[in-house]
Amino acid sequence: MPDSKSDSVPNPSYGVRPGEVAIDLPAVPDEGVYFIGRIHTPWRRREDCPKNARESDAVCTVEVGEHYAAGLAGVETCSHVILLYWMDQARRDLVSQTPRHYGVPRGTFSLRSPARPNPIALSVARLLRVEGPTLSVIGLDCLDGTALIDIKPYFASVDAVPDAVVGWHADRKG
Amino acid sequence: MPDSKSDSVPNPSYGVRPGEVAIDLPAVPDEGVYFIGRIHTPWRRREDCPKNARESDAVCTVEVGEHYAAGLAGVETCSHVILLYWMDQARRDLVSQTPRHYGVPRGTFSLRSPARPNPIALSVARLLRVEGPTLSVIGLDCLDGTALIDIKPYFASVDAVPDAVVGWHADRKG
Repeated sequence: MPDSKSDSVPNPSYGVRPGEVAIDLPAVPDEGVYFIGRIHTPWRRREDCPKNARESDAVCTVEVGEHYAAGLAGVETCSHVILLYWMDQARRDLVSQTPRHYGVPRGTFSLRSPARPNPIALSVARLLRVEGPTLSVIGLDCLDGTALIDIKPYFASVDAVPDAVVGWHADRKG
Repeated sequence: MPDSKSDSVPNPSYGVRPGEVAIDLPAVPDEGVYFIGRIHTPWRRREDCPKNARESDAVCTVEVGEHYAAGLAGVETCSHVILLYWMDQARRDLVSQTPRHYGVPRGTFSLRSPARPNPIALSVARLLRVEGPTLSVIGLDCLDGTALIDIKPYFASVDAVPDAVVGWHADRKG
């Protein structure tokens, strides 16, 4: 079992802040992911991205690779889709982190920060239209050029929990 | 660009049905994922798993690896979490598939089938408690021993869309 440490800075632009804890990651991954497309957004720099996806009404496009485009049949009937994408600029070794806008250290799995062992982000996006291999959506917050790894239909019956609470966040606002 | 084909059966237990289309996958993945824990459920065989997660009230447990357990701080304040897990028995090469219970071929990205280029499943689970590295949850549908790849807090403000519609599914029921 590797030791925790708080002084490793694999990517200098994402340094360790007070209260943050970095771990050694395994030498080899367990499985591999394919990039199946690219997401195009208006945001070219991290600091320009909306802090959360509902903050912006920007129309973004999702370009699915030609090879995978047949998989879109039926997606045009969905009002909303779940997009999974790979945050390749995020560090993967933080188990405790201190988001700038909160200022308090929290466990990685209680946050939606892109920095996590598997830097897979998830957004529920409103689907405007599908044209060939291109989806137009509202509700993303990622950098232009982000790699897409999955598109799923959003089923309100299993995915919508309007009364769900994230206690630490509610307490913060309350 | 590899050709589509419908006769390859990499895993005989997941054969190609009428209307299904398999593609050649890239030779090497673009990125790697780490398994960060294991999910324990009552289901040992595919045919025993609930067809969707809201069909079952079974309490399942999620064991996070010791190495990552510090990342759980704060998760105990969440009423619901999003779990991402790796469906290692699913084939990855189908872009069109015919789920047995629908009987009609559809694009992979309009389905929640585990068979997809990146076999990452997503469930919104109700969190009962966190004890050390172990979460007890309701709302999973996967096989016992499934590999965990992420835990995220569920924020109703961005994740809940109660009026979302999957048109092909609604038409089917209507």
